[in-house]
Amino acid sequence: MSEHFQEFFLHILLQLAVIISAARIGAWLLGKLGQPQVVGEIVAGLVLGPSVLGRFEPQVLEYLFPNDATIVFRALSELGLVLLMFLIGLEFEFKHLRKVGKTASAVAAAGIALPFLLGVALAMWMHTLLAIDANRGGFVLIVAVSMSITAIPILGRIMIELNIQRTPLGTLTITAAAIDDALGWILLAAVSAMIHGGFEFWGIARMTLLTIGFVAACLFVARPVLRSGADTLMTLGNGDLSVVGLSAVLVTVFMAAAATNVIGIFSIFGPFVLGAVLSDHHDFREAVGRKLREMVHALFLPIFFTYTGLRTNVGLLETSRDWMLCGLVVAASMTGKIFGCGAAARLGGLSWRDCGCVAVMMNTRALMGLIAINVGRELGVVPDQVFSMLVIMAVATTLLTMPALRLLLTDRP
Amino acid sequence: MSEHFQEFFLHILLQLAVIISAARIGAWLLGKLGQPQVVGEIVAGLVLGPSVLGRFEPQVLEYLFPNDATIVFRALSELGLVLLMFLIGLEFEFKHLRKVGKTASAVAAAGIALPFLLGVALAMWMHTLLAIDANRGGFVLIVAVSMSITAIPILGRIMIELNIQRTPLGTLTITAAAIDDALGWILLAAVSAMIHGGFEFWGIARMTLLTIGFVAACLFVARPVLRSGADTLMTLGNGDLSVVGLSAVLVTVFMAAAATNVIGIFSIFGPFVLGAVLSDHHDFREAVGRKLREMVHALFLPIFFTYTGLRTNVGLLETSRDWMLCGLVVAASMTGKIFGCGAAARLGGLSWRDCGCVAVMMNTRALMGLIAINVGRELGVVPDQVFSMLVIMAVATTLLTMPALRLLLTDRP
Repeated sequence: MSEHFQEFFLHILLQLAVIISAARIGAWLLGKLGQPQVVGEIVAGLVLGPSVLGRFEPQVLEYLFPNDATIVFRALSELGLVLLMFLIGLEFEFKHLRKVGKTASAVAAAGIALPFLLGVALAMWMHTLLAIDANRGGFVLIVAVSMSITAIPILGRIMIELNIQRTPLGTLTITAAAIDDALGWILLAAVSAMIHGGFEFWGIARMTLLTIGFVAACLFVARPVLRSGADTLMTLGNGDLSVVGLSAVLVTVFMAAAATNVIGIFSIFGPFVLGAVLSDHHDFREAVGRKLREMVHALFLPIFFTYTGLRTNVGLLETSRDWMLCGLVVAASMTGKIFGCGAAARLGGLSWRDCGCVAVMMNTRALMGLIAINVGRELGVVPDQVFSMLVIMAVATTLLTMPALRLLLTDRP
Repeated sequence: MSEHFQEFFLHILLQLAVIISAARIGAWLLGKLGQPQVVGEIVAGLVLGPSVLGRFEPQVLEYLFPNDATIVFRALSELGLVLLMFLIGLEFEFKHLRKVGKTASAVAAAGIALPFLLGVALAMWMHTLLAIDANRGGFVLIVAVSMSITAIPILGRIMIELNIQRTPLGTLTITAAAIDDALGWILLAAVSAMIHGGFEFWGIARMTLLTIGFVAACLFVARPVLRSGADTLMTLGNGDLSVVGLSAVLVTVFMAAAATNVIGIFSIFGPFVLGAVLSDHHDFREAVGRKLREMVHALFLPIFFTYTGLRTNVGLLETSRDWMLCGLVVAASMTGKIFGCGAAARLGGLSWRDCGCVAVMMNTRALMGLIAINVGRELGVVPDQVFSMLVIMAVATTLLTMPALRLLLTDRP
């Protein structure tokens, strides 16, 4: 019915107005506390969910975000992520990568391995202690993956906010984070496949090969074509993106997202690689930024944060044992990331202070970790209680990044 | 399930890539034939629907546009329309309005009344001839409204393409079209209310008063506040829209849309009024255009056209009687609009040639007419066969606008 749709659309309009306003208010308030804008936007998203708004004003939550709008919301949130990953890819600086490739790989590997192992140990114990009736292997793997994830989009925004995304330190970290991100998704997809369809070695091997093939094709085959395409678009729009230019960019980004979606490593990986491939085309990068950045940051990103906040309920932790376990989850994930990455960076020859920066940044899990946790919940292996602990872990590590980083950077020579 | 969503999202990505590409190809092809870009985009939308793609490649259509994606699609389409109407409102020139107010009103009134009366007569006859079992009154009113609508967003784009939107002729027409648009929606909403809940005089009166109240409040109360708000945003962003600035604009636009949605005259009317109120703030208008125009025209508008195309099937006309009736619908709607508007413009003192321009432009029904037709179908009073005739009428009048207008404008002194 048309009238039904009009009422449905009224909800969408009100939702968007509330989400956009909340994101700006959150960014402003947490900005006062020295946090980056993005943390304020994340917190605003959590506040709009059942954890805060749903606790105090459940009717308002129910009215603002009825269930039938979820699919629109989720699609908008994922579209925003696709566009954001493309923008972050465009900011990628490959020229640093040649120098620090080895260290970045070591940091990435240690940053996945150590928290993963700690996560496995902790989760095995929790599975018995909490008498969780979900599949033991599935539960353990999902908890471990959630603890090992590094959040590249948010890390990228934090770096841009501190203006260190183009320094060697920034590049090392974003490179390591990018590797971890890819590894994290591959791990997550592999774990999903394992849980979902039993252990299937060839499926995982095939996916890994396809991912490597996709990246190689982008770097070595598509790059010259895309670069000359970008040149043409810039000429067509007189140094800016016309409607035709923006259309071409959007279609290419969506096709890259579709490619990695088909491979099975989620849609956001392709746009990142695509952006990275075009990152040394200065004029193109600037033109794309002018047309997309504000729209993505003002409209799409707050939707993504709110969507994730809506699925999060930290009100489920009630006993002191719950909180103690939650503290252990936070401690284990931070210990794993910080020691793993810090040690690898030190072995790579960085100063102690730079090691600290890398470790603290790699410790940012933010809402990418939440995606992993959500996947676990949807697969039916993470009970709501543990879900909330993992959410607290993801937010706590993110909240910590900026103050720690500022502390490390301010008394730099 | 997360995996289910990933598959669903793959469809969204492919849909968007196809829609954006089709719109550009359509615009390019029909541009070769002297049509404005927008007509090519409309035709691309129809081609992607059951009328063409569904006729020749039903499996491709079924794969690309499965039913469960419809709601996402419809929401995106409506959001795009909301943003577009705001941009068109911003292009509004009030200073011309003072001079031509009377003529514009006369053109608007005649442009609604004559096609409406012809529509009523034709529809009454068709109801008997085709032995339509839907409610007679409802069928007659919906057909008549569909024939009386003038499509302001598309008209706006045609004018921008011919660069006549700021001439007195352009302003007269866009003003008359704006009045007709509002009248059309009020009429449509009133008709919907009548069909849906029986004849309810006070409901209609209340809605009309609220609409007038909304416009008056925007013009006389909100205007100074909004103007100084726009000043603040421009200062904040150093003459451009920052993330904060764009957020404020989007929230205000969505709230204006929500206001008219609540009144019951559909969401797109509010943003148009809001844009019109701010149309004399030159810097603000330019800044908004830079951040939104390409995005709206490249991404959102093609979605709107495709969404409407998906609901259209011109393949339902089979017998020669069907085609004769279709011809009558087209003829009656064109006669009503062209003679009505042309005569009123002539009485207002315009030259014969300008009268022709006004009449031809007011005759553009485009996809706004289709919305009315779709409402009728959803209300259950327009059978699929008549639906398709009305669609052909809407597209035919739109296709005719540009060649006729060019003919009238080129041999101008």
